[in-house]
Amino acid sequence: MEANWTYPQQSIGEDLYRFISELYPICRSITGEGARETLRLIGKRIPLEIHEVPSGAQVFDWVVPKEWNIKDAYIKSPQGERVVDFRNSNLHVINYSIPVHRKISRDELKKHLFAMPEHPDWIPYRTAYYKEDWGFCLTHNQLLALNEDEYEVCIDATLEPGSLSYGECYLTGQTTDEVLITTHICHPSLCNDNLSGIAVTTLLASLLSGFQLRYSYRFLFIPATIGSITWLCRNESKLPNIKHGLVLTLLGDPGQSTYKKSRCGIAAIDRAAAHVLKHSGAAYSVVDFHPYGYDERQFCSPGFNLPVGCLMRTPNGCFPEYHSSADDLSFVQPEYLADSFSKCVSILYLLENNRSYLNKNPKCEPQLGKRGLYQMIGGAGDGGVDTVSLLWVLNLSDANHSLLDIAEKSNLDFRKIKNSADVLLGADLLEPIADEEHPIKRR
Amino acid sequence: MEANWTYPQQSIGEDLYRFISELYPICRSITGEGARETLRLIGKRIPLEIHEVPSGAQVFDWVVPKEWNIKDAYIKSPQGERVVDFRNSNLHVINYSIPVHRKISRDELKKHLFAMPEHPDWIPYRTAYYKEDWGFCLTHNQLLALNEDEYEVCIDATLEPGSLSYGECYLTGQTTDEVLITTHICHPSLCNDNLSGIAVTTLLASLLSGFQLRYSYRFLFIPATIGSITWLCRNESKLPNIKHGLVLTLLGDPGQSTYKKSRCGIAAIDRAAAHVLKHSGAAYSVVDFHPYGYDERQFCSPGFNLPVGCLMRTPNGCFPEYHSSADDLSFVQPEYLADSFSKCVSILYLLENNRSYLNKNPKCEPQLGKRGLYQMIGGAGDGGVDTVSLLWVLNLSDANHSLLDIAEKSNLDFRKIKNSADVLLGADLLEPIADEEHPIKRR
Amino acid sequence: MEANWTYPQQSIGEDLYRFISELYPICRSITGEGARETLRLIGKRIPLEIHEVPSGAQVFDWVVPKEWNIKDAYIKSPQGERVVDFRNSNLHVINYSIPVHRKISRDELKKHLFAMPEHPDWIPYRTAYYKEDWGFCLTHNQLLALNEDEYEVCIDATLEPGSLSYGECYLTGQTTDEVLITTHICHPSLCNDNLSGIAVTTLLASLLSGFQLRYSYRFLFIPATIGSITWLCRNESKLPNIKHGLVLTLLGDPGQSTYKKSRCGIAAIDRAAAHVLKHSGAAYSVVDFHPYGYDERQFCSPGFNLPVGCLMRTPNGCFPEYHSSADDLSFVQPEYLADSFSKCVSILYLLENNRSYLNKNPKCEPQLGKRGLYQMIGGAGDGGVDTVSLLWVLNLSDANHSLLDIAEKSNLDFRKIKNSADVLLGADLLEPIADEEHPIKRR
Repeated sequence: MEANWTYPQQSIGEDLYRFISELYPICRSITGEGARETLRLIGKRIPLEIHEVPSGAQVFDWVVPKEWNIKDAYIKSPQGERVVDFRNSNLHVINYSIPVHRKISRDELKKHLFAMPEHPDWIPYRTAYYKEDWGFCLTHNQLLALNEDEYEVCIDATLEPGSLSYGECYLTGQTTDEVLITTHICHPSLCNDNLSGIAVTTLLASLLSGFQLRYSYRFLFIPATIGSITWLCRNESKLPNIKHGLVLTLLGDPGQSTYKKSRCGIAAIDRAAAHVLKHSGAAYSVVDFHPYGYDERQFCSPGFNLPVGCLMRTPNGCFPEYHSSADDLSFVQPEYLADSFSKCVSILYLLENNRSYLNKNPKCEPQLGKRGLYQMIGGAGDGGVDTVSLLWVLNLSDANHSLLDIAEKSNLDFRKIKNSADVLLGADLLEPIADEEHPIKRR
Repeated sequence: MEANWTYPQQSIGEDLYRFISELYPICRSITGEGARETLRLIGKRIPLEIHEVPSGAQVFDWVVPKEWNIKDAYIKSPQGERVVDFRNSNLHVINYSIPVHRKISRDELKKHLFAMPEHPDWIPYRTAYYKEDWGFCLTHNQLLALNEDEYEVCIDATLEPGSLSYGECYLTGQTTDEVLITTHICHPSLCNDNLSGIAVTTLLASLLSGFQLRYSYRFLFIPATIGSITWLCRNESKLPNIKHGLVLTLLGDPGQSTYKKSRCGIAAIDRAAAHVLKHSGAAYSVVDFHPYGYDERQFCSPGFNLPVGCLMRTPNGCFPEYHSSADDLSFVQPEYLADSFSKCVSILYLLENNRSYLNKNPKCEPQLGKRGLYQMIGGAGDGGVDTVSLLWVLNLSDANHSLLDIAEKSNLDFRKIKNSADVLLGADLLEPIADEEHPIKRR
Repeated sequence: MEANWTYPQQSIGEDLYRFISELYPICRSITGEGARETLRLIGKRIPLEIHEVPSGAQVFDWVVPKEWNIKDAYIKSPQGERVVDFRNSNLHVINYSIPVHRKISRDELKKHLFAMPEHPDWIPYRTAYYKEDWGFCLTHNQLLALNEDEYEVCIDATLEPGSLSYGECYLTGQTTDEVLITTHICHPSLCNDNLSGIAVTTLLASLLSGFQLRYSYRFLFIPATIGSITWLCRNESKLPNIKHGLVLTLLGDPGQSTYKKSRCGIAAIDRAAAHVLKHSGAAYSVVDFHPYGYDERQFCSPGFNLPVGCLMRTPNGCFPEYHSSADDLSFVQPEYLADSFSKCVSILYLLENNRSYLNKNPKCEPQLGKRGLYQMIGGAGDGGVDTVSLLWVLNLSDANHSLLDIAEKSNLDFRKIKNSADVLLGADLLEPIADEEHPIKRR
């Protein structure tokens, strides 16, 4: 099917939210059964290849860690009451805690406890990936209520040789040039960070799998940091194919959309994302690359310097619910998920359709009137073609300007420029320039 | 005579206004006797070659249309009263209306009538160049007063094979490099659009015809769109000579001056016009090129991409009187015409005098004091030379900076920089660089 | 001693002020004993080579003038009272006045008198270097009190063949590439202009003379204009060594720091000075080069175009005390002198330490945690290293970015970036790139 880029806009927000709800209870980590179960649920919706990389594998400067799994955990009072219970929230255990089961004095216990005094009802989210340590996270109110002298602590977890799991969905397009979309799957019950990214990425892959595409697309579902490092280490030969890339995360909160540029800063993906946000009709921000954040850190390391940006709403660390139990099913909403999805679709639509054309009548304007193209009135919004957009496309289709260049210079929405190019192609006033002839223009 | 660029500043506004008044009654169109009569009146003031291009001639994607002429037109009531009368205003007839003479019901008549309800006393200006249609324009009050059931309509016009007329005035300078000044002559009784352009262009040609000039100058008086297309089609071999170009229009209204850049955006004409407006002491605006407006559309089509900008005051469509009977002799004023003329002169003066020089004493400053050039006090305004302007010219005359470059970097008026260069030439501290040696510097 | 760039910050302001106080009484000029005495006092603090260039020597377009010396001067009333007395202030005599001793009518005298009516208690500072004239400067109140008909004027000065004196301090570094620091020594009892520049330059040379330095440093103590012209004329062969340069002047007033860029405008010195001022925590301004001001005029003349900027506080002519007796020991203060000194040190520190490094682990991030470098907390101020600064250095150490580039892109203080590079060098994650291999990076 030729890509017409339509999808059920009415229901997409609910679909995304439903998938998040399904994934929410699972206790994920950078390895283990939680990640595997998550990949299985993604694999129900899209064709997904699941890779297992054994513990101990060297990946650049890093080593794939032992696999962590957890069955249960609690802090029990002398009266036998579970005052902190993993079954209530998997955030209660510091992710990657080593197993422990013993009596412990309150004072010693407190060295292993973490709370958020500024939000006394929230449980913080903490990890101990490379430390071989253990601990509990709890609400500040729970912490204040610990007035017994001794407690029983139990973390029924295993940290043993196993493997790191990640999923990959590859859609073959007309060329081997590819668009990379990646999202992290290692966080436990946190909705915005990053079930929102998982859900949007999955449904994008599902939508695109029905299209005939110019680019090939690679969707990665990976644990943060170690996952992208592992994938990059095992796929160096494929990297030259990556022409555009996006890290997707934090897509369900009420904040405005934020695009963080790739390291290069002027890649096509940077211009495409900025264009879509600018013409979205809503407030947004575009920020420069910085070498901390999500997996763009690895894709944009100096040895690769890939054109990979990051689309999010409120950035990490900039909303109070970040990395806490308040990042729950009430924090993300279908309307924001749908809005983020729509922006992703617009960005990919732009990349797919950004080509250069040649005005076949470059000396003076062609007479639009005799072709019924003069004083056309554009439709509301961005899709309508009008005389002004036709004149822009004609004037700049000189082989030095892509449709995105024209959209930027004219300050018109890319879809309007693309539709205008289609009208002019139909009137035989334009001819396409093959990608191969203008590789430099593949911007 | 060596160009000293002086002209009677006191009377120029009245001269321009008088010429506009003379041209105002004529019913012009893109072809026909009105345009021819206009060219005859221009030809009384400057040496003008008049060209006739026959109807049916192919000019790029267009065809020169049949020639349109009109003698009379009216809408007559059953009582025999001319309720709309071409003799009162030639705007009453849609320009290029085909002949008609018959009785017509009011309802059918109304399909051929155009008014401006928001300005009930103004007649709109409309054309039907490539449609073979007819109609009348009238005031909204006239329209409301049409309460008879039937009217007699008469348009005593002809639309027959003939020719398109345009005028060309070429002034030979020291080089074949040329400056193109063009203005449209196709509008009937509208003063700002474009008798103001015709008058300013004519008097500029008249002024320059008395000078020894570096550049050759070509002044075109052409019907809009079809005229520039026709000229371009017949003169392709001359286009490489065009180094700078200006479309002149809308030069008599009270609004601030507006310069619309050429497609290239950084041509010498763009920098010259921006410099003159910046140093004019009045508010102004400089806008980017866009592919709609006046004949810069054709000169800046991608097949030519000539360095042609457009100087106007309030842009087309941005003043309520635009394309209506209110664009009359009261709307344009001598003072605004004189101001526009002065800015044109300054732009051309800058182009003529923009050269590069070489500081003959480039190591450290020369001792200005022993030459009587230290602590000179500049005159009021832009013309005075002072130590600061001398130091700027000395410091930047390194063969990499033209006088315009120096004026821009120093934020001093070009005339002051030019005068300073003359003083330094006189003191043998500067030597000119021949154009041919620095073609890239011909900016 | 390896340069650790520490100095007694507590006492530096007092040291600078004390040196200014010592130099204040001397009547300096562009030649003569005052300049020589000043150089002798500088030479007590740093190794200084003193040059004497004979009167009449041709230096480019200029000639070294006769030497001027003065013993006494006064205006005496008929009653024998010295109503204007050189012994009270050496500003009373126009610098370079020719000798005179005679009776003179009040009216004729007044042609030789200069005051500042807007500051009736201040004596202006005036010179007559190349005019062979004489005159007195006095307070406006003194001028008003001259009510005798006749006065005796005496200027016991000599203007005779001699020499022009300047001092040069050269510190040999690891390379012959050099940093030029220059200051003018020709003004008499004026503190900000320019005893502040002399004092800061002297103590900078004293500080650096104890360091092992990458660059060689040349400190010039020269009369303004004729001194820099003389030095440039006699040292043309050394100019290619000058990689960075600063003119130091006006460094003791309470105003904010101002950096005037070199003619090139994007030299390393321009970027270094702007960076230091931006991160100083105080208001500042950076202004473009203009060809008037101090000796940067000569160093930046088009025949040399050296990368020499000018650091000052309130620019010349922008404070009321400028070139008047009010530029005295109360106008400059130790705290402002210390602040200016500190900024100079920071700029030179930056130049010395601005190198390019290569990330030895360019594919993905190295695992900082196993090296104890993760979640380091930076110290207060600019010196602390933290994870963010380490990541910036790693991400941009690709041979295309110097440490200054990284500091600019990250918006972090250069010292923090430099310290981070040192930490990464220590962890074997970075390797230095030799200057010679990347001459273009010597920015």
